[in-house]
Amino acid sequence: MGVFRTVLNIATKEEGDIVDLTVNVREALKDSGLQAGIACVFVPHTSAAVFITENEPGLRSDLVRSMEKVFPKGFGYAHNTGGDDNGHSHIRASIMGQSVCVPFNDASLDIGTWQSIVLMELDNRGRPRRLIIQLVGE
Amino acid sequence: MGVFRTVLNIATKEEGDIVDLTVNVREALKDSGLQAGIACVFVPHTSAAVFITENEPGLRSDLVRSMEKVFPKGFGYAHNTGGDDNGHSHIRASIMGQSVCVPFNDASLDIGTWQSIVLMELDNRGRPRRLIIQLVGE
Amino acid sequence: MGVFRTVLNIATKEEGDIVDLTVNVREALKDSGLQAGIACVFVPHTSAAVFITENEPGLRSDLVRSMEKVFPKGFGYAHNTGGDDNGHSHIRASIMGQSVCVPFNDASLDIGTWQSIVLMELDNRGRPRRLIIQLVGE
Repeated sequence: MGVFRTVLNIATKEEGDIVDLTVNVREALKDSGLQAGIACVFVPHTSAAVFITENEPGLRSDLVRSMEKVFPKGFGYAHNTGGDDNGHSHIRASIMGQSVCVPFNDASLDIGTWQSIVLMELDNRGRPRRLIIQLVGE
Repeated sequence: MGVFRTVLNIATKEEGDIVDLTVNVREALKDSGLQAGIACVFVPHTSAAVFITENEPGLRSDLVRSMEKVFPKGFGYAHNTGGDDNGHSHIRASIMGQSVCVPFNDASLDIGTWQSIVLMELDNRGRPRRLIIQLVGE
Repeated sequence: MGVFRTVLNIATKEEGDIVDLTVNVREALKDSGLQAGIACVFVPHTSAAVFITENEPGLRSDLVRSMEKVFPKGFGYAHNTGGDDNGHSHIRASIMGQSVCVPFNDASLDIGTWQSIVLMELDNRGRPRRLIIQLVGE
């Protein structure tokens, strides 16, 4: 049994930017030498999300449109009264999540054919983002 | 310390179908011989979700109605322009999640009295679904 | 490698109450003596949520308002026909989640500067809540 980690530093380009991390998680698994366990992908920021989706251009724009429909920018966020303007980013991030766990076995990540583990920028501009890929297993 | 896994193959019946996996996770835990750790339940598909809910008929229909209210089918999904018609399924799945982690101790799953770990079919028809129950512990 | 756990019993005050668990997770990590691994924070109840957010008063009220906008109380929940009146609580809890995993390394939790791991009371009154902090690592 052991623990292995990789830390990534990624600069997102703009609000709604989606960065595919699947290849990075596969690389971390390969580097770890672990055979079976759980991979945890975590972003230590409150206005970005990590989740799983099919990563194709249509869905990427559907995600942006759906988030604006459900948690719109102009909702009078109390968070924005202090000079901030990203209340919507925080609410969306709180709901979408910052952490996802995926099993692996035979040194292979159990990710589905159409699944990608992604980072989504929810803040109102591109930002530097730190990501942690933590593997626990044997 | 060790890792144990069970793979399930389940055929869902229709959109909105909810399949209770709690008994399967308990069986995996029993089979593993592990005493304490974390159970990760994961579905490797992009139009289904795994989450925790009280599994009673009223709430099952409330979940379907709530998802249709919040992420309706007729939202002009860009994903659907290529011939697909399940853009809503992907958006709902991305928000609801494909992975849930539950602790266990004394060889007993820490699931609450009213909690069930469930698979929800979000695609517009029943489909064969693969599920992975991965236990890491000692 | 080892598993360590802490169980908390917390009384929430009212619907929408947010309780910061970050210090408790840090204490559990210190008590465990573990250096690297994954912390899983889990609430075994179906009308409460555990997630990550910036814990400031504006966002706390924004979360309550956003949940009422998206999953309103007066939505005719089938769950409520049997005498219950917390259908909205269950739906919100199912979407927001009961479990969150955060990595740790060098005996330090990988939580971001502005991140807090929180419990949110989603039921229509304050309730006693049990919480499990489960650490797996080495």
